[in-house]
Amino acid sequence: MKNILIIGLGHIGGSLALGLKKKFKNVFNFYGIDISLQTLTKSHKKIGFLKKCLFGNKEEKLIIESSDIIFICVEPTSIEKIFTKISSYNVKKGVIVSDVASTKKDILKSARKIFKKKKINFVGGHPIAGTEKNGFSSATSDLFEDKIYIQSGEIATKKQISVINNLWRKLGSKVYTIDVKSHDKVFAYLSHLPHVLSFCLNSLALKKIGKKRIDNLGGSSYKDYSRISSSSSLLWSDIFLSNSSNLIASLDESILFLEKLKLALKTNSRSKIANLLKP
Amino acid sequence: MKNILIIGLGHIGGSLALGLKKKFKNVFNFYGIDISLQTLTKSHKKIGFLKKCLFGNKEEKLIIESSDIIFICVEPTSIEKIFTKISSYNVKKGVIVSDVASTKKDILKSARKIFKKKKINFVGGHPIAGTEKNGFSSATSDLFEDKIYIQSGEIATKKQISVINNLWRKLGSKVYTIDVKSHDKVFAYLSHLPHVLSFCLNSLALKKIGKKRIDNLGGSSYKDYSRISSSSSLLWSDIFLSNSSNLIASLDESILFLEKLKLALKTNSRSKIANLLKP
Repeated sequence: MKNILIIGLGHIGGSLALGLKKKFKNVFNFYGIDISLQTLTKSHKKIGFLKKCLFGNKEEKLIIESSDIIFICVEPTSIEKIFTKISSYNVKKGVIVSDVASTKKDILKSARKIFKKKKINFVGGHPIAGTEKNGFSSATSDLFEDKIYIQSGEIATKKQISVINNLWRKLGSKVYTIDVKSHDKVFAYLSHLPHVLSFCLNSLALKKIGKKRIDNLGGSSYKDYSRISSSSSLLWSDIFLSNSSNLIASLDESILFLEKLKLALKTNSRSKIANLLKP
Repeated sequence: MKNILIIGLGHIGGSLALGLKKKFKNVFNFYGIDISLQTLTKSHKKIGFLKKCLFGNKEEKLIIESSDIIFICVEPTSIEKIFTKISSYNVKKGVIVSDVASTKKDILKSARKIFKKKKINFVGGHPIAGTEKNGFSSATSDLFEDKIYIQSGEIATKKQISVINNLWRKLGSKVYTIDVKSHDKVFAYLSHLPHVLSFCLNSLALKKIGKKRIDNLGGSSYKDYSRISSSSSLLWSDIFLSNSSNLIASLDESILFLEKLKLALKTNSRSKIANLLKP
């Protein structure tokens, strides 16, 4: 039996492990690595890893060296460190390393720098399935059902890419392939900027009108809007940093939009406002 | 039987007429006025007004003069015009005029200017129940169930205020009372700014990545965020203008937030970003 290792058993990694275990119980052995003992214990109880260890523990070498597929499910800014660690071990020849980070350009760059000379295969990926929740306790085996998985960036053969894509298809995701540059631009607008605006709104509303009035009087539009601002601020700091240049461009454009609206309001111009709002 | 007139039979006015008719079929007669013949015909079919006419039509005088309660359900910038029209007629002594606009300070100012000398009673209100939909075809009798109704601003006795509040309670709404100044500040953050940010996001995303990629790749956070940007751009231009000073303040604060984030991204400061994002 082939061995699948999940490094990082939070909301996404935990859901991936639960989902794969459900679909491939008798096809793969499951290994788990996490930085937190509590998460490792909790996830082991539900998943039943054949091998598991804390990140940095001495069993790590054996686990990584016997893995056939390694999913790295940690915050984007820690991925390069894990690439370096993997490349320092004597990994299996056909091993496929994959990730789930929401930005892809810098990660492919790191993979090229670290994996290429060692001939380690890499398939970059991004499941569009996160919620505002964090940690293994919010992980579910059906998180990726009817969702989108984007394969983006690789140092791998077509067959190796298919191996990864097919795992996601089995979890119920629709698979798209996009180059890393387009991916990062697209998700600046589809995910990172919406999160920025939600964090912005929530921060201002809390400061200016207070939590009680928000809770009592916020309608459905406010709730839809601020939901994602309860996401982890540290994780999102990392995501924003990993897509810095695209995000800065979208922030400049947003500021310009808001400045134009301000001017139209100050000059009392209904037609200018409506023109700005029209899609 | 007392007579209730609804002026403006769109999403909110139409839902109000449908809801009141359902609850008070044998208590009130229902009158309707709208600016569109199509809307008037469509709503008459479902509601069965005892009297109805097009806005500005000669029967308007008779309808308004025989009304006991008048709900004005039009865009905020047209309300003063309707106040003036009502005050030009010989209305019933105890008539109560009410509205549903999402800003309240300027409307109370108009009501004071126009109604006070004529001794016309006014109860300002704001049901927090709108959706991104428009027009009578999206009206439903249960729109206000389990929603919030805010009574804000009045030239009326306690008893007259109760009459209006109790109608909303019967429709299933929870009634809050807030002064007009606080109302407009609170809803700059709970409704108007969220709409601005949603319009902003959607406008940028359409321009930068296009509709096809949005439709294919947008996850739940994007969809939640952009939903309200499909609201009517003309109605929202009016709403924004009617809460101009509060909205401009919130735009300044938003721009400041985005500028701070930009700086933190440029200086690669994870801790500064996380501090900004923390609630």
